Amino acid sequence: MSDITQRLIHLAVVLAIAVTLRFVLILLIRRTVRILLSRESEGSTDLGVRAQSILAKAGGLSVERQRQRVTTLGSLLRNVVDVVIIAVTLLTVLAIFGIPMAPLLASAGVGGVALGFGAQSLVKDYLSGIFMLAEDQFGVGDLITIGDTRGTVLEVSLRVTKLRDPMGTVWYVRNGEILTVGNVSQGFSAVFVDVPVAIDEDPEKVTQVLRAAVSGMQEEPAWAEVLLEEPSVVGVDSMSGGTMVMNIALKTGPNQQWGVMRAVRQRAQRALGEAGIRGPILYPAPPQ
Amino acid sequence: MSDITQRLIHLAVVLAIAVTLRFVLILLIRRTVRILLSRESEGSTDLGVRAQSILAKAGGLSVERQRQRVTTLGSLLRNVVDVVIIAVTLLTVLAIFGIPMAPLLASAGVGGVALGFGAQSLVKDYLSGIFMLAEDQFGVGDLITIGDTRGTVLEVSLRVTKLRDPMGTVWYVRNGEILTVGNVSQGFSAVFVDVPVAIDEDPEKVTQVLRAAVSGMQEEPAWAEVLLEEPSVVGVDSMSGGTMVMNIALKTGPNQQWGVMRAVRQRAQRALGEAGIRGPILYPAPPQ
Amino acid sequence: MSDITQRLIHLAVVLAIAVTLRFVLILLIRRTVRILLSRESEGSTDLGVRAQSILAKAGGLSVERQRQRVTTLGSLLRNVVDVVIIAVTLLTVLAIFGIPMAPLLASAGVGGVALGFGAQSLVKDYLSGIFMLAEDQFGVGDLITIGDTRGTVLEVSLRVTKLRDPMGTVWYVRNGEILTVGNVSQGFSAVFVDVPVAIDEDPEKVTQVLRAAVSGMQEEPAWAEVLLEEPSVVGVDSMSGGTMVMNIALKTGPNQQWGVMRAVRQRAQRALGEAGIRGPILYPAPPQ
Amino acid sequence: MSDITQRLIHLAVVLAIAVTLRFVLILLIRRTVRILLSRESEGSTDLGVRAQSILAKAGGLSVERQRQRVTTLGSLLRNVVDVVIIAVTLLTVLAIFGIPMAPLLASAGVGGVALGFGAQSLVKDYLSGIFMLAEDQFGVGDLITIGDTRGTVLEVSLRVTKLRDPMGTVWYVRNGEILTVGNVSQGFSAVFVDVPVAIDEDPEKVTQVLRAAVSGMQEEPAWAEVLLEEPSVVGVDSMSGGTMVMNIALKTGPNQQWGVMRAVRQRAQRALGEAGIRGPILYPAPPQ
Amino acid sequence: MSDITQRLIHLAVVLAIAVTLRFVLILLIRRTVRILLSRESEGSTDLGVRAQSILAKAGGLSVERQRQRVTTLGSLLRNVVDVVIIAVTLLTVLAIFGIPMAPLLASAGVGGVALGFGAQSLVKDYLSGIFMLAEDQFGVGDLITIGDTRGTVLEVSLRVTKLRDPMGTVWYVRNGEILTVGNVSQGFSAVFVDVPVAIDEDPEKVTQVLRAAVSGMQEEPAWAEVLLEEPSVVGVDSMSGGTMVMNIALKTGPNQQWGVMRAVRQRAQRALGEAGIRGPILYPAPPQ
Amino acid sequence: MSDITQRLIHLAVVLAIAVTLRFVLILLIRRTVRILLSRESEGSTDLGVRAQSILAKAGGLSVERQRQRVTTLGSLLRNVVDVVIIAVTLLTVLAIFGIPMAPLLASAGVGGVALGFGAQSLVKDYLSGIFMLAEDQFGVGDLITIGDTRGTVLEVSLRVTKLRDPMGTVWYVRNGEILTVGNVSQGFSAVFVDVPVAIDEDPEKVTQVLRAAVSGMQEEPAWAEVLLEEPSVVGVDSMSGGTMVMNIALKTGPNQQWGVMRAVRQRAQRALGEAGIRGPILYPAPPQ
Amino acid sequence: MSDITQRLIHLAVVLAIAVTLRFVLILLIRRTVRILLSRESEGSTDLGVRAQSILAKAGGLSVERQRQRVTTLGSLLRNVVDVVIIAVTLLTVLAIFGIPMAPLLASAGVGGVALGFGAQSLVKDYLSGIFMLAEDQFGVGDLITIGDTRGTVLEVSLRVTKLRDPMGTVWYVRNGEILTVGNVSQGFSAVFVDVPVAIDEDPEKVTQVLRAAVSGMQEEPAWAEVLLEEPSVVGVDSMSGGTMVMNIALKTGPNQQWGVMRAVRQRAQRALGEAGIRGPILYPAPPQ
Repeated sequence: MSDITQRLIHLAVVLAIAVTLRFVLILLIRRTVRILLSRESEGSTDLGVRAQSILAKAGGLSVERQRQRVTTLGSLLRNVVDVVIIAVTLLTVLAIFGIPMAPLLASAGVGGVALGFGAQSLVKDYLSGIFMLAEDQFGVGDLITIGDTRGTVLEVSLRVTKLRDPMGTVWYVRNGEILTVGNVSQGFSAVFVDVPVAIDEDPEKVTQVLRAAVSGMQEEPAWAEVLLEEPSVVGVDSMSGGTMVMNIALKTGPNQQWGVMRAVRQRAQRALGEAGIRGPILYPAPPQ
Repeated sequence: MSDITQRLIHLAVVLAIAVTLRFVLILLIRRTVRILLSRESEGSTDLGVRAQSILAKAGGLSVERQRQRVTTLGSLLRNVVDVVIIAVTLLTVLAIFGIPMAPLLASAGVGGVALGFGAQSLVKDYLSGIFMLAEDQFGVGDLITIGDTRGTVLEVSLRVTKLRDPMGTVWYVRNGEILTVGNVSQGFSAVFVDVPVAIDEDPEKVTQVLRAAVSGMQEEPAWAEVLLEEPSVVGVDSMSGGTMVMNIALKTGPNQQWGVMRAVRQRAQRALGEAGIRGPILYPAPPQ
Repeated sequence: MSDITQRLIHLAVVLAIAVTLRFVLILLIRRTVRILLSRESEGSTDLGVRAQSILAKAGGLSVERQRQRVTTLGSLLRNVVDVVIIAVTLLTVLAIFGIPMAPLLASAGVGGVALGFGAQSLVKDYLSGIFMLAEDQFGVGDLITIGDTRGTVLEVSLRVTKLRDPMGTVWYVRNGEILTVGNVSQGFSAVFVDVPVAIDEDPEKVTQVLRAAVSGMQEEPAWAEVLLEEPSVVGVDSMSGGTMVMNIALKTGPNQQWGVMRAVRQRAQRALGEAGIRGPILYPAPPQ
Repeated sequence: MSDITQRLIHLAVVLAIAVTLRFVLILLIRRTVRILLSRESEGSTDLGVRAQSILAKAGGLSVERQRQRVTTLGSLLRNVVDVVIIAVTLLTVLAIFGIPMAPLLASAGVGGVALGFGAQSLVKDYLSGIFMLAEDQFGVGDLITIGDTRGTVLEVSLRVTKLRDPMGTVWYVRNGEILTVGNVSQGFSAVFVDVPVAIDEDPEKVTQVLRAAVSGMQEEPAWAEVLLEEPSVVGVDSMSGGTMVMNIALKTGPNQQWGVMRAVRQRAQRALGEAGIRGPILYPAPPQ
Repeated sequence: MSDITQRLIHLAVVLAIAVTLRFVLILLIRRTVRILLSRESEGSTDLGVRAQSILAKAGGLSVERQRQRVTTLGSLLRNVVDVVIIAVTLLTVLAIFGIPMAPLLASAGVGGVALGFGAQSLVKDYLSGIFMLAEDQFGVGDLITIGDTRGTVLEVSLRVTKLRDPMGTVWYVRNGEILTVGNVSQGFSAVFVDVPVAIDEDPEKVTQVLRAAVSGMQEEPAWAEVLLEEPSVVGVDSMSGGTMVMNIALKTGPNQQWGVMRAVRQRAQRALGEAGIRGPILYPAPPQ
Repeated sequence: MSDITQRLIHLAVVLAIAVTLRFVLILLIRRTVRILLSRESEGSTDLGVRAQSILAKAGGLSVERQRQRVTTLGSLLRNVVDVVIIAVTLLTVLAIFGIPMAPLLASAGVGGVALGFGAQSLVKDYLSGIFMLAEDQFGVGDLITIGDTRGTVLEVSLRVTKLRDPMGTVWYVRNGEILTVGNVSQGFSAVFVDVPVAIDEDPEKVTQVLRAAVSGMQEEPAWAEVLLEEPSVVGVDSMSGGTMVMNIALKTGPNQQWGVMRAVRQRAQRALGEAGIRGPILYPAPPQ
Repeated sequence: MSDITQRLIHLAVVLAIAVTLRFVLILLIRRTVRILLSRESEGSTDLGVRAQSILAKAGGLSVERQRQRVTTLGSLLRNVVDVVIIAVTLLTVLAIFGIPMAPLLASAGVGGVALGFGAQSLVKDYLSGIFMLAEDQFGVGDLITIGDTRGTVLEVSLRVTKLRDPMGTVWYVRNGEILTVGNVSQGFSAVFVDVPVAIDEDPEKVTQVLRAAVSGMQEEPAWAEVLLEEPSVVGVDSMSGGTMVMNIALKTGPNQQWGVMRAVRQRAQRALGEAGIRGPILYPAPPQ
């Protein structure tokens, strides 16, 4: 009887814990959803709230889309909590009364292995997302390069990063697949403009002509804000076939090099033409 | 005897739970199938129903195909439920009566490892599918790019995504293999049209001729709905061999750039011809 | 003695279950083999029969080959069932009489890990096959593309898919390796025919000539069943070197584009010749 | 003492089983080796014999090589059986007398994980081999393509497939690495012969000339057995640069296309020359 | 009762340990955060402090960014410590009072597998980072090559390495993905300058002209610090088409070769011109 | 006390087994080392000796190198045996006296997982090596192709295969990474020699000229041992641009084709010149 | 009470073992560090010392760098030993007094899986390193090729191999990633020098001219030490376009071919010029 009593006490304890845990978790989910919906969470300090405020700051979600997503996730989470708590409680009660669990747990283990392994890339995505956010590798509006994809960050969530590439395509990249990421919007952009001329022109004369053509660009109002340094003619880059290629180095604000490159190319072309310097000799060169 | 009694009670409990569980699961499967078949599930609120309504909304299945698939899956699920419940119950009963389970469970474990690991990519497909749907990465009718495959989404199920590419081929892509997805149908499409001219033409003159050729296109009824911005001539893009390439930037509605590109190319060609600007000088250039 | 009695009862139960299970499984295998051999299984409804009827419908096996394969598989399965049941029963009996199993099970575990992991791709193949069949991704006779392999489906089994490519080679592809599959035989095929002309021809005149050449093809008896739409000249596709490429769009029944393409190419060539439009200017263009 | 008695009984049982098992296994190995050596096994029916007869049929081993390999494998297997049975028996005896096994089994587990995982690709090779043989994907003498390797099958064993490529190199491919295999020797081979002519020739005239050149080949004794269909001129395949390419379709027995292709090419060349049709215009075309 | 007493003692011990452990860990976290914030940690000797001082030395973080990151990580760690200690204590207490844990632990195991496997690449990143730092493979300011990315190291943290490439893009590379790393800034840089001349020039004469052109460069003030050795003309490197390529070998300080290469190229060109040696003969050579 | 007695007996048994096992293993290692050093092992028959004699036959090690390696491996193995036996014995003794092992074994398990998984590729290398040797895929002196590496086998050990490529580089390839291996030295080598002529030459005349040039080579003493068959002119291989390529088929002993190919090329060239057949017309052909 | 006594004895034993083990390990670490620092370890014979002496011989570390690294590693190892021994002892003591460990061990297991799997590539690196050193695949100063990296070995440690490539870049390659390694510095280097001449020159005459040009080189003092064999003209290597390529075979000491190749090329060029043999005819040849 003492045994029976003990089992009944165990039963009561397990049920109490299960009910309490479910109550606390459901409450936590409800509250998180409410806070996420009202966005009044800046001052609060407990963990759950902090996590979602990080999440909210990270992504620039449109309000209605986020509201909808939050509600769906909340109801999904509540259902998962219910199913898991009921199942575990039931099994524990059976175990309290001495019914052997080994066959059931072994059978469930097969599903568990599949589920655990299948979910591993999901967990990897979330962990990568958390660390990427914590390390502040990029933010909304940055131009970044991930593998073959380059675009402006639209949204950073814990699982995926959303980019828009220059062609207008929106890319969703799973965070766990981001092994290397390049952020173009930090600091500056440096480029070389290639200027091809005939291989038998005098390199020093060409250098002087080009230098004259681009000097003073940094003072011009059109380029003052874009150029970080005066463009510099660095000399002969390569000689092959009938072509000698001269290099002009530019340093601009992040991703602002495109307009300057076009302007420099246009000025160089005009200056070379005026100085009578011939373009590349158009015989085919040995292929490489 | 107390021991025997206890075991008989355990037996009764296990059988009762097994029968109840089977009854509930079969009922759930039947009901889900019925709802999926009659599509009357919009207003219902419990989890199972919600899951299939998400599924149903996601894919644009033809009615008869879905009906057939649902019936097959339902009967398959019922059989799986039967086999699993009978096997687990039998084993638990044997364990209740003290027959050692270790050799059997160990033998089954080998199969379990193979099954669990083999099923892991299946689970990964489903988990990826659930999150892709929840995050609304793309919908039926969107033009998307997955790896080397580009096409219009025909159907999004939890396991595979079905596309039709521009050549008419229908592609089935497993959701777990979608690491990066590009959605072309969100927002806009931006392109550059290349216009090659002779390398010794005056870039500024060419720019003016092209600007005149494409200005006002956004007001023309034919392009008013397609063009989001007036086409702009952005300048010299590259100079190599006997060719100078000018760029014209276009911004259109998603995936609507193709007609505009052809029209712009045709207008540019005509305008250049009328202005007497020569095309690229056709000597072979140094290969790269 | 009560202990001895209990053990003897356990022994009897285990042996009874083993014998029964073996009997049932052997019966099931025999029956499945008989049904597969006589192909009289259309009306039957239990799971085993359904599985093999799906299997049978899926592949278009020649009768004698399938008969032979089925017999071999049946005898293999019977042997596997015998070995597994005898081994598990023996071990359980030893465990009933209290002989420690840990050393044996641990030793067997090493083999089990190797076997389980080695078999995982086999399980993956079968699971993928089951879902591919259930989702009806393609059927016998469809022209499909899997990775670098394109061919007509000869047979879909649960483990491998068998294709014949246009060169006559027969390909066996393991289902678990099919991440993305393209089905050409669903709906239609759309193609562009490239027509190269000299870069200085008038695009509008060329368009008219080509339009005249291909208009009315859908009404011609030879193409009426193949063409789904009237061919349309969509305009200038690209201009590079001395070549301007015009595009003609075709939409045909699945995989029926080849003959139309040749016919359209021939007509275009003739029409251009008659209209005095020159072909591409044959100077080498800048390589890309 | 009853405890001691029981343990002694256990000891006796374990030793008896170990000795019996070793005896049976050694006998089985000896018998299999003897049968494999004398090749008298066609009529026998038990599993071991069947397996090796399948193995023997599959590969076309030279007699002395197989004899040597079989003897080596037999002695290796006997040693493995001895070591495993002695070790497991010793451990079980220790466990019977109550010596704790946990430290030893845990230490052995590390080796076991390494061994099990390291052996997993071996098991995969064997399982793939068994299924490839059972599915009869290819046989000795077939010309097959596996990945980048193409050759004639010399031998199919359970672990590796042995090919000889056309250059005479012998390739050993592990069966588990065969994801996709193409069998050229099933049914037929279909090819297109390209015939390049000047781009300004009349396609219809060229078609007639070629048709006349190849018509009737199927009736000629030299090609009657090789050609499955009359060669057919399918029309213009491509037009680029100064070249128009005509296609002639051939369908021959498996891998018998090479001679026909050369003959057709030679006839076409002669017929075109006699008809005064010029070859391709030899200006460089735009590279791709 | 003795049993109850024992359990209560166990309870007290567990609670005491839990409270103590939490106190110690929170203290450790607080102290580490405080030290990291005040950067007064150079002289301290215990492990935690050393670890973060290594960390701090490795990366050249801006002060405010590091301060913010440290505070966030500290609060995150405190929360993790709280949750883990409370959960483990609760479960241990339940186990002390005999409530069966198997169902709960098995359920948690599924999540544990997913979490453990998902976190494995995180652990790999950290372990790789620790060893990379310990082996001092590169430091802040070094120019390094990782896979396709080359840039100057901005920061080395335990998880990621931060580079800026020459174009200004900032790259984040996960340490676990760094299989091979090339450090350009250790020792020297050696390059060959190619000088193409006509294939029928006398190699010895060209060698003398080039030798005269570059001799003495190491003594010139402009290059004295950069050049580690006198440039040497090593002879004919290749002959193909109409071109003979001569090689000049340079050895400079790490990554200082670019200016020297341009100067050498310019001098060689001038000297060859003055000596009347013709450049490469510009006929197309056979492509490779 | 009976308990104490039993434990002391267990202790004695465990120590006895440990000492015996260590003695046997050390003896085995010593003997193997001695035999390997004196190479007197041909006639012996037990497993250890056989294994190393296989090993010794497989590789053509220089005597002193092998002696040194064997001694080092022997002393390493003795140390490993000592450490493992002492550790396991100590733990078992502790377990005999009832000290709980769970915490220690769990801690060791983490290291065990890392060690087991890390060692898995090592085990794979050895297993692959054993099977490669048993299947006699290649031997010392054979010319083989593994992945991108081709060379003559210098040594086949159980873990790595050592090749020397034609450039003199010595390659070490891990056996587990050998998925496909091509053995050039088995049987024969077959090659085609390409002979390019002008596209408008008569194929039949060219065939006759070439046939006359190479006929009778198999009888010439210089080639009698090398050529397995008379060279045969198989006809026109391809026609593109201004070139018609004729094929001559050769079949030689393994890897003996190079000299024959040069001789055939030289004869063909001379014969064509004497017969007045022009070489390929040197206009650029359309690139592919 | 006997129970309490036993537990106290257990406690004492565990503490004694823990203290002893820590003492021994710390001593071992200290001694290893001291020996590594003083490098007086040549004559000692126990395992630890031998391991580090192998390590020391393998790498050519600068003294101060190694000193610093050794001290750091020693202090790190001491800390790890302390933490592990304290934690395991504490847990064992708790287990001795009957506090349930399952919840704690299960929680720790999640971290253990992550740690074990994350550390697996570390273990792989070390195991590969040990075997690479034991097999003496390459040593400091050898020129080796690993994947795309080729360079001179600077240092071989157990975890990484350090190379300097010809451009001066220092590469760190993890040993576990070295699947195939090519050692250029063993034995010899063999190369072919290509000499292109006009396709219509007489091959035999060219062969004689070239033979005369390079004969006797092995006797010249400049090349006597470098050339292992007299250079031999092996004949026509290929004929395509207007070019016939002759091959001269060289065999030199390891990696000493570069100077000889330049000298042979220069001599061949001069000899051909003097003999009036024309270079390749510079028309473009058909691309491949």
